[in-house]
Amino acid sequence: MPSIKDVANLAGVAVGTVSRVINNHPNVSPETMEKVNAAIKELNYIPNEVARNFKMQKSKMVALVLPSIWNPFFSELAYYIEDELDREGYKLMLCNSGGRPDKELYYFDMLNQNKVAGVVGITYNDIEESVSTDIPIISIDRHFGKKITCVTSDNYTGGRIAVQELVKAGAIKVAYLGITSSAYSEVVLRRNGFIDEAVAKGIEYFIHEEHDEVYNDDNFFEDFFSKKEHHNVDGVFANTDLLAAKYIDRAKRLGLRTPEDVKVIGYDGIQDNKLFHPVLSTIRQPVEEMARMSVKLLLRKIEGKTLEQEIYRIPVKYRVGETT
Amino acid sequence: MPSIKDVANLAGVAVGTVSRVINNHPNVSPETMEKVNAAIKELNYIPNEVARNFKMQKSKMVALVLPSIWNPFFSELAYYIEDELDREGYKLMLCNSGGRPDKELYYFDMLNQNKVAGVVGITYNDIEESVSTDIPIISIDRHFGKKITCVTSDNYTGGRIAVQELVKAGAIKVAYLGITSSAYSEVVLRRNGFIDEAVAKGIEYFIHEEHDEVYNDDNFFEDFFSKKEHHNVDGVFANTDLLAAKYIDRAKRLGLRTPEDVKVIGYDGIQDNKLFHPVLSTIRQPVEEMARMSVKLLLRKIEGKTLEQEIYRIPVKYRVGETT
Repeated sequence: MPSIKDVANLAGVAVGTVSRVINNHPNVSPETMEKVNAAIKELNYIPNEVARNFKMQKSKMVALVLPSIWNPFFSELAYYIEDELDREGYKLMLCNSGGRPDKELYYFDMLNQNKVAGVVGITYNDIEESVSTDIPIISIDRHFGKKITCVTSDNYTGGRIAVQELVKAGAIKVAYLGITSSAYSEVVLRRNGFIDEAVAKGIEYFIHEEHDEVYNDDNFFEDFFSKKEHHNVDGVFANTDLLAAKYIDRAKRLGLRTPEDVKVIGYDGIQDNKLFHPVLSTIRQPVEEMARMSVKLLLRKIEGKTLEQEIYRIPVKYRVGETT
Repeated sequence: MPSIKDVANLAGVAVGTVSRVINNHPNVSPETMEKVNAAIKELNYIPNEVARNFKMQKSKMVALVLPSIWNPFFSELAYYIEDELDREGYKLMLCNSGGRPDKELYYFDMLNQNKVAGVVGITYNDIEESVSTDIPIISIDRHFGKKITCVTSDNYTGGRIAVQELVKAGAIKVAYLGITSSAYSEVVLRRNGFIDEAVAKGIEYFIHEEHDEVYNDDNFFEDFFSKKEHHNVDGVFANTDLLAAKYIDRAKRLGLRTPEDVKVIGYDGIQDNKLFHPVLSTIRQPVEEMARMSVKLLLRKIEGKTLEQEIYRIPVKYRVGETT
């Protein structure tokens, strides 16, 4: 294969000039550019980087596929993922899938075609069938199986802590509010932890859930508040902060004060200041750790290493706010 | 140049098989892969896409450079930019610059090297000198000069509207609170509009500003509240929602109620629900329109077209909340 020196010799210029032409540097005269391009063409020269990319089939780009960057939890996650990738010399490609299977699969195709080196995804569709073994994918919150490593917060312990903290705050009859998804997600463990801890504590509890495909604010809360057995619920654990805030708003309209009449704990920790109220008591996701861990594991997969675990669960912490 | 057919003939396989090897398709046996790769090597074959990319020096990737995706205004902007790019078949590369010049310049270098087709940026450093004429860059909020087209909200009118709405709500002595930056930004027009409208209305007004390099919450508000002439300010326009929320919080500690004692208007419109209080009265940035306009203008620049304007200012709207 011809080298950059051959091109320089044929064009009668320095090697640095050839490099500038290849990299479209602004300080090259049109005549020089023409001479160099003619030499490149005549010799059928392939610049190193393109050649290298072609030979090694490697990209320094990682795709992040998530439902919507507009969601504060996802934007915090994206922030730390980009930061960790940047340290390692990788660039981030961002995709808002909106949960659409075609958009999600498009990025996995890019991975299969080596246009990206890896994918970090929060996906709603079953991608297990679309991907080959040991491909560099890290899934957040969703556990597909052996092929795809999952990084998540310790949802189960989060559910247990929520009950412990509600009880500490004085609650004796607690309810779990959740929006569920048909995609199997680690998020259901928040409920399991909640149940196990309520049983261990020997207190009365209720589970109130709705599927995301039919979920509707009005129906969900009307259903909840209309049930007689819910009337003296004095502790609520909602499986996201947004749902917790909606509950508090609805309860207030019915004259229920938080935390005087009902203590409320959410999950996520999306509020990053105390300027807007209520400041939610919440199970804080370890977003930074999840992001950096995802990137570290992904890079190990890109290097062809085998990971020890299928699921990496990162400890959560309770953060007290104004609602307990 | 050898074709994919030549490779297939030499390797003794079908053209589709060569394609699968090139695209690293999982269903190819190791032996076939070896045969095809040997033929590729022998013929010095360059797959179409790599060859095309090299010849045309074109990328279908656009970089978005912003201080931090974690900021809700930027994450909303990124959401719509990605959506608009996706409609046009482009991918988004995301960079959190943190305002660091090296990180910002890195992406403009990628542009100069044709690794990305264009850049949309919210930058803090003067990039005008680093870029060649008519390069496909769209700047948001910052106006550099002819080379770089700027898309922004109509900050000046926003400042005027803020005064009009404060007066409508009953304010007679108003103050502008702002954090300034040494980077020239269209954001200063919020103050200019504020001043012009206060003068036109013939009401007393104050300007309280601090530079972002020395800004500190405590000092900023202590300075503001300690000045005697500020004592009966009953209308405040802060140049961001976050600053408005900080003001409200500080004022409350001093016993000033919003909106009873002081009406407050922010700028941005970052709150996307009414679950957290105070719901700010604000000048809402037309984020979706700014994002889509930026992409449309960028694509016209990528196609080599000349744009009619240097600055595109998009109308803003007042959104009433609980603070006026």
